Amino acid sequence: MTAARLAGRQLAASLRGEAARRVASLAEEGVTPRLSVVTATADEASAAYVRMIAKAAASVGITCDVVDLGPDAEHARIAQTLSSLSADDAVHGVILQAPLPGGARREELAASIDPAKDVDGANPLSLGRLAAGLPAFAPATAAAVVAVLEHHGVELAGRHVVVVGRSTVVGKPVAHLLLDRNATVTVCHSRTRDLAATTSRGEVLVAAVGRAGLITPDHVQPGAVVVDVGTNPTPDGGLVGDVDPAVAESVAALTPVPGGVGPVTTALLLHHTVEAAERCRPRSSRAPAVG
Amino acid sequence: MTAARLAGRQLAASLRGEAARRVASLAEEGVTPRLSVVTATADEASAAYVRMIAKAAASVGITCDVVDLGPDAEHARIAQTLSSLSADDAVHGVILQAPLPGGARREELAASIDPAKDVDGANPLSLGRLAAGLPAFAPATAAAVVAVLEHHGVELAGRHVVVVGRSTVVGKPVAHLLLDRNATVTVCHSRTRDLAATTSRGEVLVAAVGRAGLITPDHVQPGAVVVDVGTNPTPDGGLVGDVDPAVAESVAALTPVPGGVGPVTTALLLHHTVEAAERCRPRSSRAPAVG
Repeated sequence: MTAARLAGRQLAASLRGEAARRVASLAEEGVTPRLSVVTATADEASAAYVRMIAKAAASVGITCDVVDLGPDAEHARIAQTLSSLSADDAVHGVILQAPLPGGARREELAASIDPAKDVDGANPLSLGRLAAGLPAFAPATAAAVVAVLEHHGVELAGRHVVVVGRSTVVGKPVAHLLLDRNATVTVCHSRTRDLAATTSRGEVLVAAVGRAGLITPDHVQPGAVVVDVGTNPTPDGGLVGDVDPAVAESVAALTPVPGGVGPVTTALLLHHTVEAAERCRPRSSRAPAVG
Repeated sequence: MTAARLAGRQLAASLRGEAARRVASLAEEGVTPRLSVVTATADEASAAYVRMIAKAAASVGITCDVVDLGPDAEHARIAQTLSSLSADDAVHGVILQAPLPGGARREELAASIDPAKDVDGANPLSLGRLAAGLPAFAPATAAAVVAVLEHHGVELAGRHVVVVGRSTVVGKPVAHLLLDRNATVTVCHSRTRDLAATTSRGEVLVAAVGRAGLITPDHVQPGAVVVDVGTNPTPDGGLVGDVDPAVAESVAALTPVPGGVGPVTTALLLHHTVEAAERCRPRSSRAPAVG
């Protein structure tokens, strides 16, 4: 048996198509959605990721600015930049890109992003609203995990989902999104005793740690659905996930890396930006609310 | 075998003693901690609970005002009251008491409580900061669960804790507090399939649903530690927890109801209020920070 491939590219393409259509509607009202990405690093992988976002944004008609503060940027400068962009009516989405200068905590700095423009759900207020079941932008990666599962018709209500990783970018917000869909959720991490025993209880397993090959065939139950959020660079310039490819022999379905959660994450960032732009139109020009 | 009793009254008394000492220090600086409880209900159980908080506050020297807006209070009026109290320098802690008038969501209204005065952790920003590992007041009940476990020397790091209930008052925040202490955490709820199979995997089990006797001997593993957060009124005016008393025959330890988590919750509310009062002293009069 080989696992079904829970690919993300087709879903990503259809999300981008919808984003492009909505951008076109906004253009008729004279609005061009604008995303600002704030970076403060010399990290080349980060720069490549930001170029990829900018290219994807351009492909659907979103303007994307990169505000590079350099690797020595002071915390106050970063926070002040996020506040200014949040106050700028021409900017609809604001992202603070990791990594950050030493000692800076993304969660702390992201409190300066207006939640209405926090398209990657980095402000602790966005996380709290998500946890409380109030409208908020979820981190795009966490939202992409759920979007891939739902796109492929994986049932979540009443099922036991095990999440490996407790970051504020994936593990914690995805746990809340899954609870909200009535899954029973277990969160594991580096201090979990007997990880394999715990993860192999998951009917659905979400691996979001950032360690190549962490999840082996011993970590899964036969028939499980596995979502691999890891994107670990290989020496030859490729990407591998957190899940050992041998897992495909025993599970029912598995997301590929690359081509699984990643492209959907980028597409959802664009979607969130379009949504933010739609919401900040002057009230008079909005389409009437339906439902 | 009968379970050890994880009582809360002694811990509550020692927390109140410490609160009283810190109130006395504040008095020397001319500060009297003040807690405002906003109610908007005719519910008698709620009124009794608020009287109990006021009495406990008085016993340690905290002034407690009850601002009763009545069961017909409009949402905007409740929010505006929370904002005014948050802006009042003489008020250090603000609580919005449940139940609320029809259609009002506590999480939404509590966004009007300044997080610095949000001593019962009701503002979604407090929940988000808690989830992100940033300083914040946790809901007192969630904090009490962890305090009772730690007081009785129950190890949490690396252990599997199962939480039954996903409310923003207990289930979700206690999950974050437990993750922060390196427990592996599973959250179950009304839609969990085969609740007993899931809960009986918990080395520690936290029941926070509000259904008398929900947790039976079938729901626990031998030797488990069980925290009963339920406070369900009985026809004769008493209180029972979510845990069937027969569970005491098979587990290692169990919190009593009443006398377990409840008194610690009240004591922690007072503690949070004292902490809030200490933090808002003028900087010049603060003791130097240590560590």
